[in-house]
Amino acid sequence: ASYFTKVRLVGVVGEDFPKEHIAFLQSRGIDTSGLKVLPGKTFRWTGRYGYDLNNAETLKTELNLFETFCPEIPDGSRKEDFLFLANIDPELQMAVIRAINRPKLVACDTMNFWIQGKKDSLVKTIREVDLLTINEGEARLLTGESNLMKASRKIRTFGPKIVAIKQGEYGALLFSDGNVFSAPGLPLEEIKDPTGAGDSFAGGMMGHLAKTGDLSLSNLRRAVIFGSVMASFNVEAFSCDRLRSLTAVDIERRYQIFRDLAHFDAS
Amino acid sequence: ASYFTKVRLVGVVGEDFPKEHIAFLQSRGIDTSGLKVLPGKTFRWTGRYGYDLNNAETLKTELNLFETFCPEIPDGSRKEDFLFLANIDPELQMAVIRAINRPKLVACDTMNFWIQGKKDSLVKTIREVDLLTINEGEARLLTGESNLMKASRKIRTFGPKIVAIKQGEYGALLFSDGNVFSAPGLPLEEIKDPTGAGDSFAGGMMGHLAKTGDLSLSNLRRAVIFGSVMASFNVEAFSCDRLRSLTAVDIERRYQIFRDLAHFDAS
Repeated sequence: ASYFTKVRLVGVVGEDFPKEHIAFLQSRGIDTSGLKVLPGKTFRWTGRYGYDLNNAETLKTELNLFETFCPEIPDGSRKEDFLFLANIDPELQMAVIRAINRPKLVACDTMNFWIQGKKDSLVKTIREVDLLTINEGEARLLTGESNLMKASRKIRTFGPKIVAIKQGEYGALLFSDGNVFSAPGLPLEEIKDPTGAGDSFAGGMMGHLAKTGDLSLSNLRRAVIFGSVMASFNVEAFSCDRLRSLTAVDIERRYQIFRDLAHFDAS
Repeated sequence: ASYFTKVRLVGVVGEDFPKEHIAFLQSRGIDTSGLKVLPGKTFRWTGRYGYDLNNAETLKTELNLFETFCPEIPDGSRKEDFLFLANIDPELQMAVIRAINRPKLVACDTMNFWIQGKKDSLVKTIREVDLLTINEGEARLLTGESNLMKASRKIRTFGPKIVAIKQGEYGALLFSDGNVFSAPGLPLEEIKDPTGAGDSFAGGMMGHLAKTGDLSLSNLRRAVIFGSVMASFNVEAFSCDRLRSLTAVDIERRYQIFRDLAHFDAS
């Protein structure tokens, strides 16, 4: 998101968290005053990918400091127009929503861990959310509908006016009032590490929306493509390494590659 | 394909084949003089779909008359510009290629049954083919490459200059010299029967190419969308029932729905 707009981060890590990562975020102009460093261990997820890179197998989810974390919003961040709630305990997501003066757009991500473990809290939280980003498998799990048209409609009855369903290498679908947009996935020669693709997607999407302040349908579509652009970079290298060396020109160029990929003329 | 162009059919069925189906083909203006009706049983495939409608589980493949069939091309069909070899024994596909004076475009479909059972013949046949249509799972099986960029490149070294990889509800990818096109899949409320979606795709694609005679990249892309349009109709009803009552306006309208589905503006 920091490639598009000023980012203010709220979160927690433990004393085990390497300081150079925080320094990197700061070097990207990210305000880390809302990032707490507390005694204890950082949240840790361990997973494995097989032949199918679209689905990670979770080996271990260690909440660690997330178990007792209570988000505190620095005074400077209480008025933000664009709020993204990354994948975390839905009760904590709700606490952040409560702490921010009504933003223009609240977006939220989640995962099977919370759908299975805290579904009631999750449904309560997404009632307050404008845009939910979710994997197709998680959308099915959350709604009990295998058909994505039906699943997205059900999610919209929970609250979010807009639903972005992520489909891994197949791209993403954006559902809003009676409107569906299909964003392509960029076929890549080499996928090094799909971990974090969903977060990069959210970063690009929210970054573009915050930069432009424009919530029109056509700009939401552009935002989904910018999200896909960032996800396509993210999977090209291990961790978020590819995002370290990006330039605005790289991003612009890849947006154009998505245009070329998906373009076809009138009949 | 008959919605787009004059179709001349070559094939075989048994005496068990209901005559009304042949009458229906004729009512669509299809020349069935190359369709043999022989003593014996028609080819029969039996499959099952589970939660994932993208992948059929084959229960039984009964070749029956296909086992001994030798295609005979009526004199009136020996000079055709557009030849589509539907999924059948690759040796029979080759016999048809040999019987037709060099067409402008030879396209070919196949399936796991032949990839596993007659791979050498299949590779020999597709050497003579310009455009291969294949499922993503079959592309992986044929090439041993899980990555579709690599799989399509390998298929192109086998012969076909153009490869259309079908991805079920996710749409299709079109690979030609250095160029990739991603066609969206149309999200549908209700999928009644995915059987024949790949054949409808080929019919729409080839029909449009034959109608226009234009093999430019931009027209190949339009052809893939017309293929996707016909597949999207096909899955809406059991068997090919939805294709019986289609009109040119229905097709044109759905093409426009695909345009709306995939469109996004420059950044």
